[in-house]
Amino acid sequence: MYGLLGQIIATPGARDRLAAILVEGTADMPGCISYVVAYDMEDADALWVTEVWKDRESHAASLDLPAVKAAIAEARPLIAGFRNRHETLPIAGAGLPEDAG
Amino acid sequence: MYGLLGQIIATPGARDRLAAILVEGTADMPGCISYVVAYDMEDADALWVTEVWKDRESHAASLDLPAVKAAIAEARPLIAGFRNRHETLPIAGAGLPEDAG
Repeated sequence: MYGLLGQIIATPGARDRLAAILVEGTADMPGCISYVVAYDMEDADALWVTEVWKDRESHAASLDLPAVKAAIAEARPLIAGFRNRHETLPIAGAGLPEDAG
Repeated sequence: MYGLLGQIIATPGARDRLAAILVEGTADMPGCISYVVAYDMEDADALWVTEVWKDRESHAASLDLPAVKAAIAEARPLIAGFRNRHETLPIAGAGLPEDAG
C-alpha cells in the first residue's frame, strides 16, 4: 500500500468550500482505499487529508481522472498552501481491507 | 466524527514489533472507523498512526478495553517518543461509511 497525509491551507473563509470540492472530486478513484478530509482543530483555515492507496501507481493515475483534474482546478484558487506533507507505507489496521497488505 | 494522527517513534530496531502490537491490539474497538498503522518513509524508527472515530467518547472508551490496555503496556518499552500529534474533525471521504458524518 501507499499513503499520503498532510495539511492543505485554505484561503481565509474558503475551508468549507475547499473541503466539499475535495470530497466530491475524490469519491471514485480506482485503487483508493481511503481518502479522508478533516478539519484541523487548531487552525481555522487548515484541512488534513489522509490517504491510503492500493499502490503508488493508483495514486499517480488518479491525477489524470477527469473528476480529480476538475477538482484540482476548482480548488487551486482556494488553496493558500500546504504543510506537514508526508508519504507513508500503510501496514494494516482497522478500516483497511484485510487483503490490502 | 473525531480523528487523531501523529507519529510514534520506536526505540531503535523495534518498529516492526511495535507496529504489530498496535495493529493487533486495536483490531476490535467499538466506534473505531479507521485505525491505520503506517511506516514513515523518511525515519526508519517512525510510524504514523491515523485514526477516525465515530466520536470522541468512543476513542476515550477504547483506552479502557483490555486488548488496548495490554497493547499499551506491551508497546510502552518500545516507544521512544511521539511527534506531530494532531486532533482532527473528519468531514467525509472515500473509505468512510456514508452515514458516519
